[in-house]
Amino acid sequence: MKKIFLTIPLFLFLIVAVAQTQDESAIKQIFDEALTKGKSYQWLEYLSTKVGSRLSGSPGAAAGVEFTRHEMENYADTVWLQPVMVPHWVRGQKEIGRVVNSKKVGTVEMNVCALGGSVGTGPSGISGNIVEVKDFDELKQMGEKNIKGKIVFFNRPMDATKISTFAAYGGAVNQRGSGASEAAKYGAIGVVVRSMGLNLEDYPHTGGLRYAPNIPQIPAIAIATRHAETLSKLLKADATLQFYFETHCVTLADAPSFNVIGEIKGSEYSDEIIVVGGHLDSWDLAQGAHDDGAGCVQAMDVLYLYKILGIKPKRTIRAVMFMNEENGLRGGIEYAKQADLKKEKHIAAIESDRGGFTPRGFSMSADDAVKNKIKSWKPLLEPYGLTDFNQEGGGADIGPLAPQGVPMIGFLPDSQRYFDYHHTPEDTFDKVSKRELELGTASMAALVYLIDTYGLK
Amino acid sequence: MKKIFLTIPLFLFLIVAVAQTQDESAIKQIFDEALTKGKSYQWLEYLSTKVGSRLSGSPGAAAGVEFTRHEMENYADTVWLQPVMVPHWVRGQKEIGRVVNSKKVGTVEMNVCALGGSVGTGPSGISGNIVEVKDFDELKQMGEKNIKGKIVFFNRPMDATKISTFAAYGGAVNQRGSGASEAAKYGAIGVVVRSMGLNLEDYPHTGGLRYAPNIPQIPAIAIATRHAETLSKLLKADATLQFYFETHCVTLADAPSFNVIGEIKGSEYSDEIIVVGGHLDSWDLAQGAHDDGAGCVQAMDVLYLYKILGIKPKRTIRAVMFMNEENGLRGGIEYAKQADLKKEKHIAAIESDRGGFTPRGFSMSADDAVKNKIKSWKPLLEPYGLTDFNQEGGGADIGPLAPQGVPMIGFLPDSQRYFDYHHTPEDTFDKVSKRELELGTASMAALVYLIDTYGLK
Repeated sequence: MKKIFLTIPLFLFLIVAVAQTQDESAIKQIFDEALTKGKSYQWLEYLSTKVGSRLSGSPGAAAGVEFTRHEMENYADTVWLQPVMVPHWVRGQKEIGRVVNSKKVGTVEMNVCALGGSVGTGPSGISGNIVEVKDFDELKQMGEKNIKGKIVFFNRPMDATKISTFAAYGGAVNQRGSGASEAAKYGAIGVVVRSMGLNLEDYPHTGGLRYAPNIPQIPAIAIATRHAETLSKLLKADATLQFYFETHCVTLADAPSFNVIGEIKGSEYSDEIIVVGGHLDSWDLAQGAHDDGAGCVQAMDVLYLYKILGIKPKRTIRAVMFMNEENGLRGGIEYAKQADLKKEKHIAAIESDRGGFTPRGFSMSADDAVKNKIKSWKPLLEPYGLTDFNQEGGGADIGPLAPQGVPMIGFLPDSQRYFDYHHTPEDTFDKVSKRELELGTASMAALVYLIDTYGLK
Repeated sequence: MKKIFLTIPLFLFLIVAVAQTQDESAIKQIFDEALTKGKSYQWLEYLSTKVGSRLSGSPGAAAGVEFTRHEMENYADTVWLQPVMVPHWVRGQKEIGRVVNSKKVGTVEMNVCALGGSVGTGPSGISGNIVEVKDFDELKQMGEKNIKGKIVFFNRPMDATKISTFAAYGGAVNQRGSGASEAAKYGAIGVVVRSMGLNLEDYPHTGGLRYAPNIPQIPAIAIATRHAETLSKLLKADATLQFYFETHCVTLADAPSFNVIGEIKGSEYSDEIIVVGGHLDSWDLAQGAHDDGAGCVQAMDVLYLYKILGIKPKRTIRAVMFMNEENGLRGGIEYAKQADLKKEKHIAAIESDRGGFTPRGFSMSADDAVKNKIKSWKPLLEPYGLTDFNQEGGGADIGPLAPQGVPMIGFLPDSQRYFDYHHTPEDTFDKVSKRELELGTASMAALVYLIDTYGLK
């Protein structure tokens, strides 16, 4: 009896040890291949510099759909376009923003841009006194008597002491998302929002706003952080300052577009789907290299690595380029709707939408058993710099799959430089490090490999 | 009795818990301050863009000495210059490198630069057949009959599959450091070395070589990685290819220079010194922003943070800007020599010389007790992304202190982009992220704080 008790654990131990060695070796192969033969970087160059900006409904978005479809057709088992109607907002000619009557300095031009989804002022612009607030509480305290007929200037900076820049973003972005409607409640005629960036910069950051129902829709612009500082100083010196801005944006009728989907069919459990994705649309001002060309080419490259390494997955692996993350999430919603209608069984969804930076880990929204299973793979992933498995979260585009009980996983690259580029003309291909991008691809491919091999239950 | 046994551990537990909370709070303060009031970034801007390149013996190096001394005098208890004689190598006019008689393509200009410390060819240049080798074994196999009178082309790329780019560098850099003397053993007249970079680039990377004693000193150049690829292709098509290169570098007499040292005196154990440093010299082709302006301003900022936070250290904290790391290490050697002569007691030396990138951890060369003590602080440092405490090593400049038994610690930032810039004209201030640099400063200040508070014994 004693002998049996000793033998079985040893036997199991050996099985586990062999499996671990095989996994180590497979993951090393994935990283080696991504760093030497992966295509993420060359695809991202094309998507950023040849296709360029890809706002939903734009010719660039259509070109992005064609490019990614065409590339995946070279190696995926199946590639298809999933139709989706998207909002079609157009910026129009370049915006104007200026202080018009400062007693000290006269007219001062400011670098501004309309926020995505904003109504435009039209060619006559709007002008009025401008009042600065830090947050919605301050706005409420000022009330209608101090706000009505004026422009509200939201000037709460992102908190530089947050180590995760996404936490800093989360603490400031309600000014951009809801500031217009909040200010309109008190009769404001327009809003100027400090750009969502941690540095002092000369360029504004665009990004979406949402108008609340039954509240007048007033025009909203972002102002470059450096000019937000200037404006704040001028206002302190002269509270009667007049501000003028002019935006030409319009919202057209919804436009037809697509999610782009490529897959490799599973050999054993082909009905079990692992999604890996990013979003194909970008803001109009940017090449969308980090946000989120990077996530798209990484997802495409995960499939490509399977192909060139000759790994036959047991489960079906699907790369999804979601459309319209930036101003509507229609692609993510449509994908989840179709998955539900077709009774597809998604066992995991992984999104990369935090830029093509050095890998640090994965966030998760899932039950504890799933989280613990993924954490049990940490020793296999740590040698590649993947050490952070403690954050909650998945990704915007995969979020609509959550009600179907799909475990959500977010790829977590280093966050420090992301908001230097996010939603700005600086989000260009040359800001992407080839190795950092490729390490991200390999990180996701390694996680897909482990999920495919062991499942998540 | 039972009661006492229960009470003592509880009491100790409370002491530990209170200390940990105090440490957490002190470290958070350090990070907050570094990210909002630190001076690293503005100092680095000056050092990179106003002072510029700082090769030992150059006017730039002298300006760097004056600038850092002057700045530290504003806040350190004591600042002094430690004299050291340094090698004085001068590049002279821009180098020429070309394929002169390719049958297919005729003359092809190549981007090259002399390696630091190389003898020059003078205005008449050298020309000859060129033979490509991957390593010293291949060179040996070819032997004198294939090498004599020719130029040797060392073309072994850095291994992209190494996750640490320093490991990739370590696997390739002997071609640059010793290639000239190795080739001269077999009668070569010059060497062309593939640049130490992982990307295909148009600019060469300079860097030091060492001539072995009693072997003819032949001229050596680095060639841009993209042109190394071209040259290799041309050679495969035509082995009779002639290569010409011309360099005007000379080694002058040793020049006087200085280590720059600032310190805050310890209040309790002022004889116990904690060194934090970087090297002030850079290569002549670079602004030396990442290599190693970053390390210098971070060390200066560690002292500055102590000052503005009003933390009185128990031990003496010394910021050292070492001179001449790049081509002689004379500053590091002199510092250790003087420490020995004065019987100074260094309890730790920390160097930052891997660029101003996002922190990942610290490497260590010390006995196990010291290593374990530092590792015991991991829970305090992990929230700031410092997770890697397993690598061996310190830093080149602090290395000469090792025989005195000083624990060596190297700051480990993310390594992925370092060799895109290292020793090239691309190592400029705009390649440095403000937050990444400041997080590095704070990481070192936090470690200094813990060493100062608890010692390392």
